[in-house]
Amino acid sequence: MTSSIHRCRMLGCASKFFTYETTKSVVVKSWTLGIINRTVQLLIIVYFVGWVFLHEKAYQLQDTAIESSVTTKVKGGGIYDDKVMDITDLMSPPEGTSVFCITTRLITTKRQFRGSCPYTKYSCNKTEDCMKYMSRSDNGIITGRCVECNSSSLCCEVRGWCPTEVSATDTRPIMEVENFTIFIKNSIRFPTFDFSKGNFLTNITEKYIQKCNFDMQDNIYCPIFKVRDVLHYANQNFSAIAQEGGVIGIKIGWLCDLDWSEEHCNPTYTFNRLDALSQRNNVSKGYNFRYAKYYTNENGTEYRSLFKVYAIRFDVLVHGQAGKFNLIPAIINFVAAFTSVGLGTVLCDIILLHFLKGSDQYKAKKFEQVTAITNTSCISKTNDGYQGSCQLLSVKQKKQEIH
Amino acid sequence: MTSSIHRCRMLGCASKFFTYETTKSVVVKSWTLGIINRTVQLLIIVYFVGWVFLHEKAYQLQDTAIESSVTTKVKGGGIYDDKVMDITDLMSPPEGTSVFCITTRLITTKRQFRGSCPYTKYSCNKTEDCMKYMSRSDNGIITGRCVECNSSSLCCEVRGWCPTEVSATDTRPIMEVENFTIFIKNSIRFPTFDFSKGNFLTNITEKYIQKCNFDMQDNIYCPIFKVRDVLHYANQNFSAIAQEGGVIGIKIGWLCDLDWSEEHCNPTYTFNRLDALSQRNNVSKGYNFRYAKYYTNENGTEYRSLFKVYAIRFDVLVHGQAGKFNLIPAIINFVAAFTSVGLGTVLCDIILLHFLKGSDQYKAKKFEQVTAITNTSCISKTNDGYQGSCQLLSVKQKKQEIH
Amino acid sequence: MTSSIHRCRMLGCASKFFTYETTKSVVVKSWTLGIINRTVQLLIIVYFVGWVFLHEKAYQLQDTAIESSVTTKVKGGGIYDDKVMDITDLMSPPEGTSVFCITTRLITTKRQFRGSCPYTKYSCNKTEDCMKYMSRSDNGIITGRCVECNSSSLCCEVRGWCPTEVSATDTRPIMEVENFTIFIKNSIRFPTFDFSKGNFLTNITEKYIQKCNFDMQDNIYCPIFKVRDVLHYANQNFSAIAQEGGVIGIKIGWLCDLDWSEEHCNPTYTFNRLDALSQRNNVSKGYNFRYAKYYTNENGTEYRSLFKVYAIRFDVLVHGQAGKFNLIPAIINFVAAFTSVGLGTVLCDIILLHFLKGSDQYKAKKFEQVTAITNTSCISKTNDGYQGSCQLLSVKQKKQEIH
Repeated sequence: MTSSIHRCRMLGCASKFFTYETTKSVVVKSWTLGIINRTVQLLIIVYFVGWVFLHEKAYQLQDTAIESSVTTKVKGGGIYDDKVMDITDLMSPPEGTSVFCITTRLITTKRQFRGSCPYTKYSCNKTEDCMKYMSRSDNGIITGRCVECNSSSLCCEVRGWCPTEVSATDTRPIMEVENFTIFIKNSIRFPTFDFSKGNFLTNITEKYIQKCNFDMQDNIYCPIFKVRDVLHYANQNFSAIAQEGGVIGIKIGWLCDLDWSEEHCNPTYTFNRLDALSQRNNVSKGYNFRYAKYYTNENGTEYRSLFKVYAIRFDVLVHGQAGKFNLIPAIINFVAAFTSVGLGTVLCDIILLHFLKGSDQYKAKKFEQVTAITNTSCISKTNDGYQGSCQLLSVKQKKQEIH
Repeated sequence: MTSSIHRCRMLGCASKFFTYETTKSVVVKSWTLGIINRTVQLLIIVYFVGWVFLHEKAYQLQDTAIESSVTTKVKGGGIYDDKVMDITDLMSPPEGTSVFCITTRLITTKRQFRGSCPYTKYSCNKTEDCMKYMSRSDNGIITGRCVECNSSSLCCEVRGWCPTEVSATDTRPIMEVENFTIFIKNSIRFPTFDFSKGNFLTNITEKYIQKCNFDMQDNIYCPIFKVRDVLHYANQNFSAIAQEGGVIGIKIGWLCDLDWSEEHCNPTYTFNRLDALSQRNNVSKGYNFRYAKYYTNENGTEYRSLFKVYAIRFDVLVHGQAGKFNLIPAIINFVAAFTSVGLGTVLCDIILLHFLKGSDQYKAKKFEQVTAITNTSCISKTNDGYQGSCQLLSVKQKKQEIH
Repeated sequence: MTSSIHRCRMLGCASKFFTYETTKSVVVKSWTLGIINRTVQLLIIVYFVGWVFLHEKAYQLQDTAIESSVTTKVKGGGIYDDKVMDITDLMSPPEGTSVFCITTRLITTKRQFRGSCPYTKYSCNKTEDCMKYMSRSDNGIITGRCVECNSSSLCCEVRGWCPTEVSATDTRPIMEVENFTIFIKNSIRFPTFDFSKGNFLTNITEKYIQKCNFDMQDNIYCPIFKVRDVLHYANQNFSAIAQEGGVIGIKIGWLCDLDWSEEHCNPTYTFNRLDALSQRNNVSKGYNFRYAKYYTNENGTEYRSLFKVYAIRFDVLVHGQAGKFNLIPAIINFVAAFTSVGLGTVLCDIILLHFLKGSDQYKAKKFEQVTAITNTSCISKTNDGYQGSCQLLSVKQKKQEIH
């Protein structure tokens, strides 16, 4: 008997802790409210199931930190100024990285030696005209002298590589560039899932590679791109871009649902012009740069050939996102969905308490009033205004009635 | 007396606003439910404290937008074709950026002049065989003529740099590359916290630098890496990668808890092969590119040496995340944790109302029913089916009883 | 009549589903609690309106995946060793990408031929001294022989490019670099909103471009930057950085609120030194690299000029964030704000139930107790300890009273 009481006492102590507390609810049997409530709940469920779970795949762990390696190789040859140019002559940098330039137009200044010569860009009448340019350090040092430019005009003398570049030279673009092919090898890895893949899908054979060209219909996984096609998909005109140069983005997107098999994780290619600016603004159009090849002659004097290159720069940009089922986000979002279903209550409560017929009655049911035990010495009156702070007594009385 | 009433009236008006509304709860003294409820709450608390706070450090403001600067320098020299090659000959680009290539094998085609010559790649019997290649612009222009290739065979003529490259030339890799050292200087900055650090830790002395080599045990902070070790940590075989080329990633991770002192924010180095693709697929293996050195002879004619380079490309990739205590995420996550503890209720409610002995009794206690005042003219019956919409009268009666 | 009953029966069935359930609340008329409650609610509302909505713009869809294209062009010329150098001589790589180096100091080693020569870096007395260096592959192969270095000393022989570089050569930096101008063309695009813009604002005219220079006051949108100004804004001293080299970051930030017109989306430029490390640690200061120009002499022997280049490397880094009103985040955050207002209850409940006068009374009102129907055979006693698990009978009795 004693042990029984003792057991019960222990149980009693624990029972203070192991109780379960849940909210008391008021169930309103109202068609209007019921339909609104269920509709709101339905909308929330549809939102969560349709958007959050099916579309956004919130049950997955997502990884956007893609590791990517791009190597490129361009093939082709063209004729410029009656000389054959192969890709080694036309591509820079040579390493085949994700950013590379293909020359489309060249302004060549051959056999430049260090010295002093007239600079056609700054015309002058007398020495004073040239003095103002001396502070500028524009491709050489302006000596400040006004010298004979050609038979008819005078221009300022420059100390630098002579003769200076004549930019007015009008050369036609190397039209063969349109037929050049760009071969892109892209390996990616999602470190979170240790999943790696490449844009050479397993079903691509050596034979297919040798003759395929990417297009948006039948060869969406061929890793060889014709310059013409790339420009076409980027809505560019070859003649225009070849004349002035430009920057084209080749974007490779990897959107992978790793709950499916590996075969469903494939790249998508998109193309657009990156220097959109150049098309809108006339100030500085296109893309060009200068480089030089250096030589020495027999007596050791250095000379160079200067090239002003108008080029199409291709930037291969890789982005990706992989998702895989994971318990933690799945639970978190399920719980979020579950609790959100209750949010319809907020709207319905407003309707219930303010707009529904008999809202006073509902208010009385929903809210149970209890007044604080204050020491304000005000008179108990049934007047609505300060009845609140004076209900003290009635509450106390009720309490006594209960016990 | 009047002022007292007036005061009370004002208090009364404000008291309508300054009331406090809390949910009415039902406390169920059930061991089963109590234990389930507390267990669920415990699990949620453990999850939040263990995972969200301690592991994920949700009380911190996180910054992943790391600013990084990488400069590299490679040292070493080797012998190729009986000629000594130093690093300037073998590394490209020379600027020491985060991406650089070390040559491991070379196919050299010396003294190429512009002209026409047989192209060994396209063999032929007659002119027609070559005509089909004319549309291709593959390293020169196919003239369409079928000419003598060597004493025994015929092949198509190409207009370009002659002689053409003979890719069959089998050269052995430069084995000394394995002993080359890569010196990496990495400075990072977390702009949100204005915190900057470098991979030269303050305890690294000039003496240590001169003789240390990175390894995973004792020298985890030495910024000098032997190519051999890098390949070893990336699970690669030097002979294989030197023969065909490849891309190796050197990843520097900065995971910094800035609530601790600066000394705890140190880099970790990981290594892996980035072009995993090359190992799986036979179509296009390894990594190689071509470049040329241009010369002019005495009479001004340009000629070049063409190099097909098989190289190991190293990509130094920096990623990082820093966290520091911040009041806003701390409060938000504390509140989220607090409210989530209440989620156990959902599970327990289901058990309480459906599976526990005496669930009807609990239902009666938890749910208090109130019927809407509708104008449906249906007969009041005790039948469960439509009693709901007809309880109207009883509610009205109750209301009258209350007043 | 039958159809009426049938209709009601259908309504009745549906009425089980279309009911509305809301929590029953206890309204406490307490000044203390009311003020605390409203204050907490006010703070939460202020936080959401001020921080979440106005500052963080949580009603917007945000996009940080900025697509960017940077092209650069540097202009300027200087004198080094009495020779004029133009930008083609001083800038590398020449392509005008987002990372480029401007040479500030040069150590030239002219006419290096392949051969064997003394290596001044390793001094020796006898052959044995040099044997220990043989394993090192540092810019050539140490032969192991100890040879005459100059008239007074001996040093180890190296097989490589001869003569070897003399690093002690003290050259002065090219001071004209300070006046060089960097022209940056940056086009960006936010793919989510298909919004693109460039750093050439529409109000920039060709005339303005020709004479403007960026400064932080009047020309914040001029895309031409003087090297002097860039270094000044990055708090660097030209003489110091020109001597040892360094890496400077030019950051372009695009923070765009696309709910406003396009004119409000403008770039901001910030500058800082990226290799902060170099300034703190003496081990490896600055930034330098080596490159070579290759020549052949009359008889075909290759020789080269080696350049050790101290340079300022500029990294143009583009980051951005665009936001635009979107219904989904707007709703989600509005709901989050709405539900969070209720969180004040947690604090107030603690005060109500533990610290307020008459808390027992409130407890009685808030919590309604119901005991589980258990099969423990303990004695019913009024003792608080295990009364809980034994109230079974009274509950059963109540139930019977109800029915």
